[in-house]
Amino acid sequence: MADSRTVERYDVGVVGAGLAGLTAARELTEAGLDVVVLEARDRVGGRTAAGSLSTGDAIDRGAEWIGADHDRVLALVEEFDLELCEQYDGGTDRVAVAGELFDHENRFRALPEDSAAELREALERIEELRRDVPLESPSEAPDADRWDATTLESWKHEAMATEAAREAFDAFVRAEFTVEPNAVSLLYLLAAVDAAGGLEVDEESVSVLQEYRLAGSTQQLSQGLADVLGDAIRLNEPVRRIDRRGEDVTLVSDDESYAVSDAIVAVPPPLIGQIDHEPALPARRRGLVQRMPMGAVIKWVAAYEEPFWREDGLSGSVLSADGIVTEVADGTVPDGERGLLVGFVAGADALEWSDRPTAERRERVLDELERYFGPRATEPLAYADEAWSKTRWSTGGYNAAMTPGTLTSCGDALREPVGRVRWAGSETALEWRGFMEGAISSGERVANEILDDRGA
Amino acid sequence: MADSRTVERYDVGVVGAGLAGLTAARELTEAGLDVVVLEARDRVGGRTAAGSLSTGDAIDRGAEWIGADHDRVLALVEEFDLELCEQYDGGTDRVAVAGELFDHENRFRALPEDSAAELREALERIEELRRDVPLESPSEAPDADRWDATTLESWKHEAMATEAAREAFDAFVRAEFTVEPNAVSLLYLLAAVDAAGGLEVDEESVSVLQEYRLAGSTQQLSQGLADVLGDAIRLNEPVRRIDRRGEDVTLVSDDESYAVSDAIVAVPPPLIGQIDHEPALPARRRGLVQRMPMGAVIKWVAAYEEPFWREDGLSGSVLSADGIVTEVADGTVPDGERGLLVGFVAGADALEWSDRPTAERRERVLDELERYFGPRATEPLAYADEAWSKTRWSTGGYNAAMTPGTLTSCGDALREPVGRVRWAGSETALEWRGFMEGAISSGERVANEILDDRGA
Repeated sequence: MADSRTVERYDVGVVGAGLAGLTAARELTEAGLDVVVLEARDRVGGRTAAGSLSTGDAIDRGAEWIGADHDRVLALVEEFDLELCEQYDGGTDRVAVAGELFDHENRFRALPEDSAAELREALERIEELRRDVPLESPSEAPDADRWDATTLESWKHEAMATEAAREAFDAFVRAEFTVEPNAVSLLYLLAAVDAAGGLEVDEESVSVLQEYRLAGSTQQLSQGLADVLGDAIRLNEPVRRIDRRGEDVTLVSDDESYAVSDAIVAVPPPLIGQIDHEPALPARRRGLVQRMPMGAVIKWVAAYEEPFWREDGLSGSVLSADGIVTEVADGTVPDGERGLLVGFVAGADALEWSDRPTAERRERVLDELERYFGPRATEPLAYADEAWSKTRWSTGGYNAAMTPGTLTSCGDALREPVGRVRWAGSETALEWRGFMEGAISSGERVANEILDDRGA
Repeated sequence: MADSRTVERYDVGVVGAGLAGLTAARELTEAGLDVVVLEARDRVGGRTAAGSLSTGDAIDRGAEWIGADHDRVLALVEEFDLELCEQYDGGTDRVAVAGELFDHENRFRALPEDSAAELREALERIEELRRDVPLESPSEAPDADRWDATTLESWKHEAMATEAAREAFDAFVRAEFTVEPNAVSLLYLLAAVDAAGGLEVDEESVSVLQEYRLAGSTQQLSQGLADVLGDAIRLNEPVRRIDRRGEDVTLVSDDESYAVSDAIVAVPPPLIGQIDHEPALPARRRGLVQRMPMGAVIKWVAAYEEPFWREDGLSGSVLSADGIVTEVADGTVPDGERGLLVGFVAGADALEWSDRPTAERRERVLDELERYFGPRATEPLAYADEAWSKTRWSTGGYNAAMTPGTLTSCGDALREPVGRVRWAGSETALEWRGFMEGAISSGERVANEILDDRGA
């Protein structure tokens, strides 16, 4: 079939039009290179995804929060003239662990005193240990082998004795990484915390959420980049094969072939394995692809006439180890007409509930919200959710996480180019891995590598 | 493109012509159904793979050993009139752990007394615990959650204190499962041991190898089945998409479409994720695909004028935690003209060494053989090896293994049909999982499920 195809020729071909791929494409285009971006979906943005409720309210189906330190995201917000909103931070947080409900102005201080102290010590210990983990090569940490062989679940049992502290830790891991503590190693956590600039374990806050959101959706960031790139972007063009046998790299979609001098693959790590690579990828690269599953998450949004929980002195923030909802946040946009609650089902529960009908999930989520916010929570104007594990071109969310033993055996392969194929995406970021900021920084990294390589 | 295709119609479509797929196809054909088998490779047999040395000696590049209890394999051996050879069992085994070399008639008794006792106790403990693991649903074991959160590496440190016992355990895990002890959970090991009928921890032997091999190659078993099936098998026909949206299931390859009432997917688990499934697979099925990487193994064979090690009173059997070679066995066929040593590099070393040139691997393997068998080992008449992680349509070997936390979160999905698509392959076997016997039994299982479903 390939014989009858027209082969288009570009300097650089980018696979995936999420923030990472779009950023790389933009940098390279601005440096004067001829770039094509091949996107499997019918839209740009990857895990930034605009949605709307039946009430007409705009929501984020995917990535939402932006940190005050996320300079790259904030620069795009300014460039594209988007509206930044502060995350509501008033009132009392609720923490549901060990079958009880605890309130406090800070979720990590809400626990009973002994549990709070234990949890705090555990988090401080993580913060201390992660400083021994080299950012670019976590497997060179002094105790890397032992830490990579210890699941977070095993470590938790050593580090904490009270049920409340342990369950709060579970909820923290699920909310932050959308994985179960039995599925990742201590080394992976330390490296991930390191790549997100550390935990701020202080009196004020150990916040899972970042400070800002956008009015509208974060997909506007991706769309802004796409507008700059114009017709360099080909939608509905999944790359099926990457052929490195010739002088050029050939990217093959269902109907077209693209010959490029350099290729950038900026898709969720498990999808790298869905592409046919010729010749086969190096064994450790291939090993990594098989050992880096996507986390599992269902993100839901419920809209109300107003943010009624604020009247009750509640922040809307919940962290829970009970039920299936791990985390809730106030998702109200300052000048929005509604009160919005946004939350997550994460980890094993997300895998289980992704296959159930939306109506069933809605009922269960609202039931759990009643416990935290009273009966008004059960009658939203609208409800919507997105089961990321079911999406064809993300296959999970928020991010891929390495399984125990993987960082020390295959971790080297994460950013290592294979011939003229380079790897981007938030999972490859050295700064703010797993965040939009990380996706952008990974795109900058590969673009700079290519420009350096060309002596530009 | 699909528009212009001829759609062929069959009762059952089988993806993958390994022992599992071929067995299912044969059973269903004999029951009167119209079956097509779609195989990506240019040969049948999957992980049974004939090879030959430059000396002309026939070897197994893949699956080799057959147990005395492997009734299904033995029945095929008889049916196809193949020649069974007993594995050589004379002489002394060598065990290399903690930098030392130990000899004994049985490898697990070769260690110093305290270490041997510890190892024996640990293996007895595994044998005891696995009896509490339900064969069909390991996640219902009483301590399933705890066991699935504990890596074998963590468990080893609790169960054994001496370096020699720990290293022998490492070598056992690598040799048996081609994974590192940090990459699988205790529950996974217990379930795997359970599905292989238990460990025989007795005075006589705890053998990793089974009793028999074939003169020629075990691929003859697959070829025998293929001969029965004739032109129902289509080679060079990788299935790219499985569409479950219609009444029929449609299997789509590069150039053809096959409409079938029932589909059987009998490929290594990670390859299930390389197929486009429409609609998306259930989240736990998809989760399992991402959490069940292939083990990593390089199998090598070295041929000599004669099995000279036997003259020195050695069995040819080595289990080692030093160097990269984990296991060696006498691979000489009784009436063969040569002496053959066969062995494995497994786990992290296999991932690392798969990408090096064969000549470099050869030198390293022969260097290590010199330690065990003297200088004659360094001058073979021929050497060959197969890095299974590099093979396009197996992507690793011997088998796929679930990562920690996977059995309890996604394990249910392993054999659960999705619509009219069923799952076979040795990894799905209830008996002798991971062996040829298991592949065959899994093929029988799905064939019976389909026949039952049709009321046949």
